[in-house]
Amino acid sequence: MSGDVSRFPVVELDGLPEDLRERVGAIAEKSGFVPNIFRALGHRPAELRAFLDYHDALMDRSDGLSKAERELVVVATSSANHCTYCVVAHGAILRIRAKDPELADRVAGNPWQVELDERGRAIVDLALALARDSAKFGEADLARARAAGLTEDEIWDVGAITALFALSNRLAHLTALSPNPEFFTMGRPAQ
Amino acid sequence: MSGDVSRFPVVELDGLPEDLRERVGAIAEKSGFVPNIFRALGHRPAELRAFLDYHDALMDRSDGLSKAERELVVVATSSANHCTYCVVAHGAILRIRAKDPELADRVAGNPWQVELDERGRAIVDLALALARDSAKFGEADLARARAAGLTEDEIWDVGAITALFALSNRLAHLTALSPNPEFFTMGRPAQ
Amino acid sequence: MSGDVSRFPVVELDGLPEDLRERVGAIAEKSGFVPNIFRALGHRPAELRAFLDYHDALMDRSDGLSKAERELVVVATSSANHCTYCVVAHGAILRIRAKDPELADRVAGNPWQVELDERGRAIVDLALALARDSAKFGEADLARARAAGLTEDEIWDVGAITALFALSNRLAHLTALSPNPEFFTMGRPAQ
Amino acid sequence: MSGDVSRFPVVELDGLPEDLRERVGAIAEKSGFVPNIFRALGHRPAELRAFLDYHDALMDRSDGLSKAERELVVVATSSANHCTYCVVAHGAILRIRAKDPELADRVAGNPWQVELDERGRAIVDLALALARDSAKFGEADLARARAAGLTEDEIWDVGAITALFALSNRLAHLTALSPNPEFFTMGRPAQ
Amino acid sequence: MSGDVSRFPVVELDGLPEDLRERVGAIAEKSGFVPNIFRALGHRPAELRAFLDYHDALMDRSDGLSKAERELVVVATSSANHCTYCVVAHGAILRIRAKDPELADRVAGNPWQVELDERGRAIVDLALALARDSAKFGEADLARARAAGLTEDEIWDVGAITALFALSNRLAHLTALSPNPEFFTMGRPAQ
Amino acid sequence: MSGDVSRFPVVELDGLPEDLRERVGAIAEKSGFVPNIFRALGHRPAELRAFLDYHDALMDRSDGLSKAERELVVVATSSANHCTYCVVAHGAILRIRAKDPELADRVAGNPWQVELDERGRAIVDLALALARDSAKFGEADLARARAAGLTEDEIWDVGAITALFALSNRLAHLTALSPNPEFFTMGRPAQ
Repeated sequence: MSGDVSRFPVVELDGLPEDLRERVGAIAEKSGFVPNIFRALGHRPAELRAFLDYHDALMDRSDGLSKAERELVVVATSSANHCTYCVVAHGAILRIRAKDPELADRVAGNPWQVELDERGRAIVDLALALARDSAKFGEADLARARAAGLTEDEIWDVGAITALFALSNRLAHLTALSPNPEFFTMGRPAQ
Repeated sequence: MSGDVSRFPVVELDGLPEDLRERVGAIAEKSGFVPNIFRALGHRPAELRAFLDYHDALMDRSDGLSKAERELVVVATSSANHCTYCVVAHGAILRIRAKDPELADRVAGNPWQVELDERGRAIVDLALALARDSAKFGEADLARARAAGLTEDEIWDVGAITALFALSNRLAHLTALSPNPEFFTMGRPAQ
Repeated sequence: MSGDVSRFPVVELDGLPEDLRERVGAIAEKSGFVPNIFRALGHRPAELRAFLDYHDALMDRSDGLSKAERELVVVATSSANHCTYCVVAHGAILRIRAKDPELADRVAGNPWQVELDERGRAIVDLALALARDSAKFGEADLARARAAGLTEDEIWDVGAITALFALSNRLAHLTALSPNPEFFTMGRPAQ
Repeated sequence: MSGDVSRFPVVELDGLPEDLRERVGAIAEKSGFVPNIFRALGHRPAELRAFLDYHDALMDRSDGLSKAERELVVVATSSANHCTYCVVAHGAILRIRAKDPELADRVAGNPWQVELDERGRAIVDLALALARDSAKFGEADLARARAAGLTEDEIWDVGAITALFALSNRLAHLTALSPNPEFFTMGRPAQ
Repeated sequence: MSGDVSRFPVVELDGLPEDLRERVGAIAEKSGFVPNIFRALGHRPAELRAFLDYHDALMDRSDGLSKAERELVVVATSSANHCTYCVVAHGAILRIRAKDPELADRVAGNPWQVELDERGRAIVDLALALARDSAKFGEADLARARAAGLTEDEIWDVGAITALFALSNRLAHLTALSPNPEFFTMGRPAQ
Repeated sequence: MSGDVSRFPVVELDGLPEDLRERVGAIAEKSGFVPNIFRALGHRPAELRAFLDYHDALMDRSDGLSKAERELVVVATSSANHCTYCVVAHGAILRIRAKDPELADRVAGNPWQVELDERGRAIVDLALALARDSAKFGEADLARARAAGLTEDEIWDVGAITALFALSNRLAHLTALSPNPEFFTMGRPAQ
C-alpha cells in the first residue's frame, strides 16, 4: 500500500545543481540515503536551497535549545498537524538525539499530554500554541514559557522552528510526501 | 521521561479474579507480557470482563472484515483521537496482521490521507466520520461505504469497533495509560 | 416525521437468546416497554451482552456517585455529542432519579453552563473534558475534580461512564436509533 | 438546582412602559404566563420593543414558510448553539404548531441528522449552514435550498430567522436566561 | 471583480415607505450615500424598521460605552465572523470615532491579540467570548469584565451589541452584501 | 494604541550584515521605508537571508501565476490565519498589483466567499484547503484546481506560497509584528 515519493516530479542526487548535489550528498552519505524531502523539492532548486538554509539556521544552531529539544518541537507540531513524513523522519532523529527509543512515538501519539519534564513541557506547550490556532498566540503563552526558564532566544527558536515546520508540514501535505523506509526503524532497539 | 502505567491503581495478573487471571494469562502467554490496559482495568474486574467480552466479540469475529482491517479501524480512529496507548499497541498488532512494517505508522501519521486501496479507504473514511464529529454521521457516509462494496455487517463492524475504541481511547486518556515497551518494536523488521 | 427504530435489523424480545431474553425482559417489565437500544443491538447477542454488563457495572454501582449523578454524566456528555436517543432516554431516567422535572432539559440544553451545585458542576466539567477533545484531558482536569471533593473512585466512575457513552452515542448515531415514545414523557409532571 | 430568571435586572409586566405592557400582556394572557425573555429584556424598553417588532415581522408572517417551519428553524439553530431558553420555549411552541409531541426533542437532540421530509431537511440544512460557521455560507447552500423547492422569499425567511435567533441565543447566554416552568411541558401528551 | 449589492432584491431610497425614506434619507445625507445594508433590507420594511430601531437603541446610546467602544465591539466580532460588509463599513466608522486611522485594520486583522488598553481588551474579550462559541459563555467571562471595571450596564451593552451583530453578520452572509465603495477609504488619511 | 514593532530585538538597516543591508536597502529605496518584517528578523541574519531567498523564489517567479495572483494567495491565507501584519502589508501590495482598491479588503474580510472569477476562486480554495486543516488536504482539492485549469506548476506555487506564509504568519504572531503605517494606505485612491 506504500505510495510514490511525491505527487510532483522527483529529482535524484545527480540531477541537482552542483551546490545542492554536494550539500544533499553530504547528508546522504551520513544517513545512508537521500531523505525524500530533498528529492521532492529538487525540481525547484532555489526553494530547496532556501529550505536547507532555513533548516540549518534553526536546527544546527549550537546555543540555547539542545538538538533533541529542537527535534521535540518538530515532532510535537508535526503530530498536531498530522504530517506523516515529518513525524516519521524527525521521530527517527529524535530517537537518536534523545537516546530514547520511545519518546518520539509518545510525543507523536499525543503531544498535548505526553509526560515530559517541566522544561520539555514548556517547550512543547509553546510550540503547540503557535502551531495550531496561532491567531490566539499571545503574552500568556510567552509568560508560561518564561516562567519555566526559557530565555528570549530559546523562545524565538521554539517559535521559529514551529513556523518552519508549519511550512514543511504543508509541503509534505501538498506533495503527499512519503517517508524513506529507513526512517521507520532508525534509532529503534534491535529486537 | 517514560511515566508510570496508569494514574489509578494497577493490578498484576495474580491479583485478578480467577476467570480474568486465566483469560489475561492466556493473552500474556501469547504476547510474552501483560498488556498494560489489563493491568489498568484490573481494579474493576466487572468492567475489565465486559471490556474483554466486547473486544473479543468485535475483534475476533471471523467473517466480514479481516483481522488487519479491524486493526486498521482501531489505529485510524485512535490516531484521530491522539490516543498514544491504542496507536502504539494496536499499531504493533496491525504491523503483524497486515504483514506491513510501515502501514501502522502511515495510518497513525495521517488517517485522513494515507494511501489505501479503495476498500481500505472506505473503511477508514467510515470510521473517521463516526469517530470524531459523530453528530453529523449520516446516510451520505453509509452510501459511500456501500458504494465501495462494504456489506451491512461490515459497516456495523466498522461502526462498532470505532465506538468501542471511542471508549477505549477515553479510558487511556483518563488513566494516562502507558504502552508496554514491547509494543514499540513488535512487528518491525530487524535492523 | 418519526423514523424507524434502527438502520440495521431489529430483534424483538422473543428472538433473543435465553439469557438476554430474561435480562432484557426484566428491564421491559420494570419500564413497561423494551428500550430500543436492546432491540437494535439484539442481532449481535455477544455485543449486547457485553454492553449490558458494562452498563450495569457502571450504572448500578452503589457506592460513590449517586444514581442521579451517574445519569447526569450520561445526559451531559450525550448532549455534547448531540445523541438524541441517549439524551431522551437517559433524560427520562434523570428526571426520575433526581426527582426534578426540569434538570434533564436544562443539562441537555447546555451542559457547559447549566447551573449546578459545586459537586454537580465538577462532575459535569470532568465528563465534558473527556467526552469531546479527550486528547487534551489531563492533570488540570483531575485537579479541579479533586478540589471539588471527588474521590479517585468517583473520578474513575465519571470517566468510565463518559467513555461508555462515547461508545453508546456512536452506536446510536450508527443506527439512527430512535427513542421509544415513552421516554419523551417519563418523569414529567402531569399537566 | 434551578437558577434565577436572569443575571440582570428583571422587570415585571406592570413595570413596563404602557405600549409594552399591553403587548406583552396580550402574550401573557394567551400563554397564561409572561415568558421570561420579556421580563429579562424589560429593563431596556427600546431594545425589547425592537426585539418584539423583529420577532413579529418574521415569526407571524403568513406567507411562505408555515408557522411550524419557522419554529423548526428556531429549535434547530438554538440547539446547534446550545441555547437552553430558546430550545425549551420554542420547543414547546413547535410541539403545538407541528402537532407532534416528539419532533422538538428530536430536532433539539440532533438537528443535523433528525429525520425530516425533503423540504424540512432543506430548511434545517440552510439554517444550520448560516447559524454556525456563517463565513462559509454561500452559493452551494442556496443551490441546495432551491433544488428542494424553497422560494427566494422562503430562503430569506429561513436566513433571517436564523439571524434573529443568533441574536436571541446570545442574549439568553448573556443573561443565563431561565425558561419558565410551563414551557417544559406545554404541548406534551397527558401521561 | 466586485459583485452586486445583494443576492436578493434591492430597494432604493425612493422605493421605501415614507418613514424609512426619511430615516434612511437622513443617514444618506450625513454620509453622502445610502449604506447598502439599508438597500438590501428595504424589500422587507418591517424588518428594516426593527433593525434600525435595535441598532439605534444600542449604538446611539449616550451613557456607558463610548461611541468608539461600541464600534470596537462591532469590528472585533464581525472580524471573528469574517463578515466583510460589517468589517469594512464599521471599520470606517471606527476610524472616525476613534480618530485613529489604523485601529480598525488592526482589530479586524486579529481581534484576539490586537494591542489595546486594559478596558479595550476587556470589552473585546467579552464580545469575542459571546460572539463565537456562546454556549460556553459564563461567569468567568463576566468576572474578567467586572475586574476590568466594566459596569453591569456596560456589560449588557457589549453583550447586546455582539448579539445584534451576530444577526447583522448573518444577514450580510445571507445576502453576500457588498460594502459601498466609500467605506473603504472613509477616515483614512489623505495620502 | 499602536504597539512597538516586535516583541524581540529590532535591527535597523545599518545594523545588518552587508549583503542584507544592500538587499533590504534596495527594497526600502523602492518602498520608501523598511518593512518591519526585515527589522524584526534582522537579529537572526541567517534566518532573514533564508526568508528573503524563499520569498523571492516564490513571489518574484515570472511564469505561471501572475504577481497579483501570488499576493491573492498571501492575503487569503493570512486572513484565514488572522495575521494582521501579512494582511495589511500584502493587502497593500495586492491593491497595487491587481490595480483594484477594494480587492484586498474583500479577500481579507472573507476569503472563503469573496466573489472572484473561476481561476481566482480555484487559487484561493486550494490555498485555504492547505492553509488551515492541512491534514485533510488531498486529491479532491487537487482535482478541483486542475478542473479550473491550473497547471501542476501553478498548483505547486499556490501550495508553496501558502506554506511560506504559514511560516510567515507564525513569525508575525510570535513577534506581535506591527505593520508599518505606510502599508495601511498604499494603493488606496486619493480621497
